[in-house]
Amino acid sequence: MAKGVTPKSTDYNKWYTDVITKAQLADYGPVKGTMVIRPYGYGIWEAVQQALDFRFKATGHSNAYFPLFIPKSFLSKEAEHVEGFAKECAVVTHSRLRTSADGKGVEVDPNSKLEEEIIVRPTSETIIWSMYKKWISSYRDLPLLLNQWANIVRWEMRTRLFIRTSEFLWQEGHTAHATADEALEETLKMLEVYREVAEDVLAIPVITGLKSESEKFAGAVDTYCIEAMMGDKKALQAGTSHYLGQNFAKAFDVKFQNENNQEEFVYASSWGVSTRLIGAIIMAHGDDNGLRLPPKVAPIQVVIIPIVRSDEDGDQINAYLRPMLDELEQKGVRVFVDDRRKMSPGYKFNEWEMKGVPLRLEVGPRDMASKQVFAARRDTSEKFSMGIDEAGQKIPGVLDDIQATLYRHAFEFRAQNIHSVDSYDAFKKIVKDGGFVKCGWDGTRETENTIKAETKATIRVIPFDENPEGLTCIFSGKKAKHQVIFARAY
Amino acid sequence: MAKGVTPKSTDYNKWYTDVITKAQLADYGPVKGTMVIRPYGYGIWEAVQQALDFRFKATGHSNAYFPLFIPKSFLSKEAEHVEGFAKECAVVTHSRLRTSADGKGVEVDPNSKLEEEIIVRPTSETIIWSMYKKWISSYRDLPLLLNQWANIVRWEMRTRLFIRTSEFLWQEGHTAHATADEALEETLKMLEVYREVAEDVLAIPVITGLKSESEKFAGAVDTYCIEAMMGDKKALQAGTSHYLGQNFAKAFDVKFQNENNQEEFVYASSWGVSTRLIGAIIMAHGDDNGLRLPPKVAPIQVVIIPIVRSDEDGDQINAYLRPMLDELEQKGVRVFVDDRRKMSPGYKFNEWEMKGVPLRLEVGPRDMASKQVFAARRDTSEKFSMGIDEAGQKIPGVLDDIQATLYRHAFEFRAQNIHSVDSYDAFKKIVKDGGFVKCGWDGTRETENTIKAETKATIRVIPFDENPEGLTCIFSGKKAKHQVIFARAY
Repeated sequence: MAKGVTPKSTDYNKWYTDVITKAQLADYGPVKGTMVIRPYGYGIWEAVQQALDFRFKATGHSNAYFPLFIPKSFLSKEAEHVEGFAKECAVVTHSRLRTSADGKGVEVDPNSKLEEEIIVRPTSETIIWSMYKKWISSYRDLPLLLNQWANIVRWEMRTRLFIRTSEFLWQEGHTAHATADEALEETLKMLEVYREVAEDVLAIPVITGLKSESEKFAGAVDTYCIEAMMGDKKALQAGTSHYLGQNFAKAFDVKFQNENNQEEFVYASSWGVSTRLIGAIIMAHGDDNGLRLPPKVAPIQVVIIPIVRSDEDGDQINAYLRPMLDELEQKGVRVFVDDRRKMSPGYKFNEWEMKGVPLRLEVGPRDMASKQVFAARRDTSEKFSMGIDEAGQKIPGVLDDIQATLYRHAFEFRAQNIHSVDSYDAFKKIVKDGGFVKCGWDGTRETENTIKAETKATIRVIPFDENPEGLTCIFSGKKAKHQVIFARAY
Repeated sequence: MAKGVTPKSTDYNKWYTDVITKAQLADYGPVKGTMVIRPYGYGIWEAVQQALDFRFKATGHSNAYFPLFIPKSFLSKEAEHVEGFAKECAVVTHSRLRTSADGKGVEVDPNSKLEEEIIVRPTSETIIWSMYKKWISSYRDLPLLLNQWANIVRWEMRTRLFIRTSEFLWQEGHTAHATADEALEETLKMLEVYREVAEDVLAIPVITGLKSESEKFAGAVDTYCIEAMMGDKKALQAGTSHYLGQNFAKAFDVKFQNENNQEEFVYASSWGVSTRLIGAIIMAHGDDNGLRLPPKVAPIQVVIIPIVRSDEDGDQINAYLRPMLDELEQKGVRVFVDDRRKMSPGYKFNEWEMKGVPLRLEVGPRDMASKQVFAARRDTSEKFSMGIDEAGQKIPGVLDDIQATLYRHAFEFRAQNIHSVDSYDAFKKIVKDGGFVKCGWDGTRETENTIKAETKATIRVIPFDENPEGLTCIFSGKKAKHQVIFARAY
C-alpha cells in the first residue's frame, strides 16, 4: 500500500480516485466506462444490499428477475421515456463471431445479423410492463410489488467510478396498483425506506422532496428523491422514487377489471438506488487519510493488530484475545485479526486507516501485562485503552457512537453549507464557492434553464418542508411558487 | 390457477413446462431465448444462493464484480476458449439510437458504431484475468479467491426454461494460486461444496468425477463435475469446477515473483453453478401434481390454511395459531398463513400442492375443538393430526424427514436406473429406454464420437470411484481405460 492520497483541498477529484485505488474499492475495466468492483468495495455493497433487501421484504415486496435484453421497439412505446434513454444505450446487432480471414483473431459474422436490434437495459420499465400485461387482468392480481437486483447499461462519456459508469449495479422496484392513491402511497413509502437507509445505515443526512419537471425521470408523472451533500459541497442524487401514474400501463396496454367490473389502466411506481451509494459514502465521510466507514456498512468493523516479536508472542496473544473475540462474534461484530507476518504494524495501521475500518485495536506484551487493549477510533482519531475483560462488552457501544458521530459530522457540515439567500449575486457567489442555496423559485422552466446556463447549478429538490410563503424568485423577482435547493451536482 | 398438468408419462417436456407455468416459476421474455424468473422461482434461487454464498465465504472466498462487456479481442487470446465461446455470443456494435425518419420509432444511429465490437460475457475468465494481470505481481498477492454473482449470455437456438436460455444467472469463482497443487486442491474443494449443496440442500444425489476431453470446458486442463439424474432418466450437468493450469495466465501474461525470486505464471481454477439448478429441482422431485420442494430451498416451508366461515372464525383461528406461529418463527421456519378470503380451501390446496410447499396445515372449528391441527405432507401425501401444543415442537423434525425422504426417493430412482452392461446391444437398449449406463471405455475420442452419433449418449462423467480393472470397452472391445457413465443429457 503506497502511502498517502492527494489532499481533498488540493484536488477533490484526484483525492476521490486516490482513495478508491488505495483502499482497493474499484478499478476501471478494459471497455471504456466500465468498472470492476473489487472485494472490499463489493463488501460495502453487500452490506447496503442487505439493509435494503430486508426493508423491501418487510414492506411486502418480492424479488424477481427480468431479461437484460429489450427489443428496440419497446423503448419508443412511452413517448418521454424514449427521449430520456434512447441516446445512451448499448445496441446488440449480431449473435455470432467467426474466425477472421487471417486465422488469427475473430470477427463479427455478418450472417448473424439480428432482424430487430436489441437494447441492453438502461432501466426495466418497458420490459417489466410487457410482462405485467400477461400477468395482470383483475384487481385480484394487484398490488404487484416486485423488485430486482440487476446490472444496467447507459452509455456514458464522462465517467467517474461508482458515480457514473456505463454499467452499474442497482435495484429497481416496479409496482402495480389498482388506484392512483395506492401507487402514490407506495412511491412515498419507498422514498422513506431510502431516507432511512441513507441516514441510519450510511450515516448520510438527506433532503427529501420532489424533483422539478426538467429533472424528473423520463416517463414519470412525478419523481421524488433523496439528495445528499458531498465533501466538496456538491449535491449527489442518492435515490429516486417515481410515481408513474398510468403512463407505462397505457404504453403497454395493461388494464385490469376493478371490483365494479370496469376496465381501468393500472397505476404504477418505480424506484431505485445503485452502487452510486458507495461513491456517496466515500465522499460524505472520507478524509485525507482515506475512507471513514460507518460501522453498519463496514465489511470489517474492528481490526485487531497483534504486536508480535516471536511465534510465542503470537500464541500468547491469541489466547489472550480469545474470550473477547468469542464475545464479539456472538454479538455479530465483524472482526478481523490481521496477523500477517509479512507486514509491519505501521504498514497495517496505514492500510486499515485508508480502508476506513471504524475501530482499530492493538495488543502487545505491554497491553497483556496490564490486562488491556489499546484502541483507536477512525472517526475522531481518539485513542484510549480498555480492560481486556470489558472490551467485548464495550465495543458495540463504541461502534454505535462512531456511527452517530459520522452522521453528526456530515449533518453539521451540511448545515454550515446550506445558505438562504435573497439576491442573485449572493446566489452566484455561493454556487461558485460551493454549497447548497435555499431560495424562492418562480416555478418556470425558463428561470431554471437560465440559472443552469449561467451558474451550472440546478434545482436538486423541492423539499417536502418547503415554505414559499412570502418568498420571491431569486432570479425573476416574481412571487415564488416553491422554495427550492439549488446546487451544482454530480 | 388452472387445474392439472400434463402427466410426466404422457409428455415429459410438456409436464416440465406446465409445472413452471402453473407454479409461476418463470416465463419467456420478449427477446427469443430470454427468461423471466418470477418471484416464486426467484425465491428458490435466493435459498440456493444463500446456501452457496455461505459456503464460499466459509472457505475463504470474497465476492467481487467484473464488467458485463468484454473487448472482442480478449476472446481469441486463449486458443481453445475462442472455439468454445465465439460461436454463441451477443455482439454490441453501436452505442446510440436516434428517432427514425418517419418520426414514429427509433433506429440505430450509424454514427455511433464502435471501433472495436464488444462481447456480452459468455463467461468471465478473459476479463478477470486481464484484471489479475494488474493485481498480481508477487506470491504475497496469492492466493486470490474471488467469486461473482452475475448474468451471462450465450446465444441459444433450442431453449428450455432454467436449463438452457440465452441469458441466465450464475456464480463463477475465479481463483489464482502460486502452485499447481494448490489450484487443483481448490478445484476439488469447490466441487465438494457443489456436491454438498446438491445432496444436502437440493436433495439431489450426484455423481462426482472428471469430464472426458471432448466434454471439458474450453480452456481448462481438466473439468470436474457433479452429474444428476432427472425424472425422465436423462442426465443433467449440475455444476462444474475447472482446473485451468496456467492457460489463462499465459494468455494474459500473468506472472508472479515466487518466494525464491523467480518469475512464474500463475495457476488457476474456475467453477460455476447456475439457475439451471432450479430446473434440476423441478425435474428431480416433481410429480404429476406439480413441484415437490425440499424444505431447505422452499420459499414457504409450511402453509397454513384456515377453514373459515365467518370473520369471527378467522379471529378465533388466529388466536388459536398464535403460540405455534411464534414458536415456528423463533425456530426460523418459513410459514405462510393463506387467509385470502377470495379463494376456497380447495383452490388453495391445489395451488400449494402445485407450488410444492413441503407441509400443509389445515385448521377449522373441529380441529380447534379437539386442540389439533391437520397436516398433509407433499412428499408422501401422508396425512395426520398433531396436537396444537406440540406442533411447533414437531414441525422442524417433519421438515427434516421430508428433506431426507425426497433425497431417498431420488437416490432410489437413480439406483434403479443405473445399469452395468457388457454388450453394445444392451447399451443401446438402455439408452433408448432411458437410464445411465455404467461401462468400460477405451479412452479414445473416436469411440466416444461414434457412440454419440449412433445413440445420442455421451460420457457424462468418469466417476472418482471408477473401477476399470478387468473391464473391456463397450464399443471397441479393447481393454478399458476408464469405467464411465454414459447417458443422454440435457
